[in-house]
Amino acid sequence: MGGDSAPDTVVDGALLVADERPDVQVLLVGPEGVAAELLDRRNAAGRFPVVNATQHIAMDEDPARAVRAKRDASVRVAARLVRDGAADATVSVGSTGAAMAAALFTLGRLPGVTRPAIAVVVPALNGPVVLLDAGANPDAGPDLLAQFALAGVAYATTRGIDQPRVGLLSNGAEPGKGDETRKAAYALLETLPIDFVGNVEGHDVALGGRADVVVTDGFTGNVLLKGIEGALAMSGAAVPDRLDPERLGGALLLGVDGIAVLGHGSSSARAVASCVGLAADAVADGLLPRLREALDGLVRRRRQAAGLAVNG
Amino acid sequence: MGGDSAPDTVVDGALLVADERPDVQVLLVGPEGVAAELLDRRNAAGRFPVVNATQHIAMDEDPARAVRAKRDASVRVAARLVRDGAADATVSVGSTGAAMAAALFTLGRLPGVTRPAIAVVVPALNGPVVLLDAGANPDAGPDLLAQFALAGVAYATTRGIDQPRVGLLSNGAEPGKGDETRKAAYALLETLPIDFVGNVEGHDVALGGRADVVVTDGFTGNVLLKGIEGALAMSGAAVPDRLDPERLGGALLLGVDGIAVLGHGSSSARAVASCVGLAADAVADGLLPRLREALDGLVRRRRQAAGLAVNG
Repeated sequence: MGGDSAPDTVVDGALLVADERPDVQVLLVGPEGVAAELLDRRNAAGRFPVVNATQHIAMDEDPARAVRAKRDASVRVAARLVRDGAADATVSVGSTGAAMAAALFTLGRLPGVTRPAIAVVVPALNGPVVLLDAGANPDAGPDLLAQFALAGVAYATTRGIDQPRVGLLSNGAEPGKGDETRKAAYALLETLPIDFVGNVEGHDVALGGRADVVVTDGFTGNVLLKGIEGALAMSGAAVPDRLDPERLGGALLLGVDGIAVLGHGSSSARAVASCVGLAADAVADGLLPRLREALDGLVRRRRQAAGLAVNG
Repeated sequence: MGGDSAPDTVVDGALLVADERPDVQVLLVGPEGVAAELLDRRNAAGRFPVVNATQHIAMDEDPARAVRAKRDASVRVAARLVRDGAADATVSVGSTGAAMAAALFTLGRLPGVTRPAIAVVVPALNGPVVLLDAGANPDAGPDLLAQFALAGVAYATTRGIDQPRVGLLSNGAEPGKGDETRKAAYALLETLPIDFVGNVEGHDVALGGRADVVVTDGFTGNVLLKGIEGALAMSGAAVPDRLDPERLGGALLLGVDGIAVLGHGSSSARAVASCVGLAADAVADGLLPRLREALDGLVRRRRQAAGLAVNG
């Protein structure tokens, strides 16, 4: 039910997936009657299982409160399907906050994770860049940035990058650049079992080449991504195919115990299909076990640092 | 002596100014012998007064330390010319940190200013946007952001914008968006005698139209600007003339008691001339008295809040 032109675009997106991805089975989650009518109108009755959800959360509702209050909201029902093993992933193009809250509430966090992060893949000029956090945590301290680094590396490896280079987004490439959070995070990232390449800058996210994973707080990540989008619109350039938001899919919520994809509220049917494709690929590529493994190292280090016994 | 291809580009830039701006008198600051030789080679002996400065500060020196240690560094000599009334403005395309430190050290701060900010004018699609801080203060709290807002408004009025709209850069347009700094700054900006339009986003800086002045900390401002630059390069678009960095000029250091322009280290002669033009316009438009007046209000408010007598 989520998204600016839902539920039509959601159903049309599912039909695109059915045509193009025989490996993917879509379950529609929402009011049964609405789904039946939409499918009927497209001569597609019975093409997808429909899981009834009688409530939904509007874009202007307080996400955390609405998710707690509405047990039968479509995002909560979808998250329960994943928790119970009836689905492998959830996709929502509705309120990002509500989809995040529902995933966190129902699926819980992976061990080692304090707060999940939104990860997007920027199709930069010299190769893709995984940027996180793109908006979930406006106030993220050094320890969270370290978690994001490990999660980002795990994600990048599922995208075929064998030893991802990790950069810390800062206001200059030299060591010592940055605000107090960055300076503390720099020291912490140096201690992690990752290929930390130091500070990177705003243009490194758009151009790529210096780092495969770029770590930042959700405030800066969000501002930067929207700035890049705005600049591309400003340039008036015909956006190359690989930059086409329709094909970019959505963002992954990394750190919850399940695969959850968050799409733009303005998603078209094509964009909805891309989001489903992103979710399906994450499942097929074993993102969740990789994340678990990467973060397990963090748990061990914390236990060691605290003088506790290390399992295994 | 500053800049990647100094001192040649500086002298060539001065010659462009001499040709194009009869209203502007350039003084060259640097080693007399070097200047004489460069001018000689261009058949331009005696075209500019040369003020001798025997030292200079390299890009890789610690700016604050080097400025303190080198009394005869060109940036310090230039700042003294302004302080003593022998020049109206300084322009440097050398180490930004050194030029800032020299201006702050020699010129001092305007009343009401805790820390100066770097202001750039982004030639956005729907009209120019004054963005500050672009990098001087990676850690800027709510009170600094309020100073930046007042200084930005004063600057925008010199650019012909009568009642500048001020936006607070955030990770969403809705009130309540932002990290803790932004939430506190939002409340403070609402109390200022400015046209505060609320939160604006990264794309609003590239696209313009929502705010004429966008206020942020130096960390976020720097990341955003470099992201926009990177995206423009990424788009591969022929950059429109108004976006040409050669013609953009440099950045203004707002909050010191004098006009100081900071240019890119990679500035060409054309870019050096644009920086000089920016400085000359700021002087002609009365930027300094306008800043003084805008910040005076802040001083009065602080005195009132502290229960002190208000002058005048």
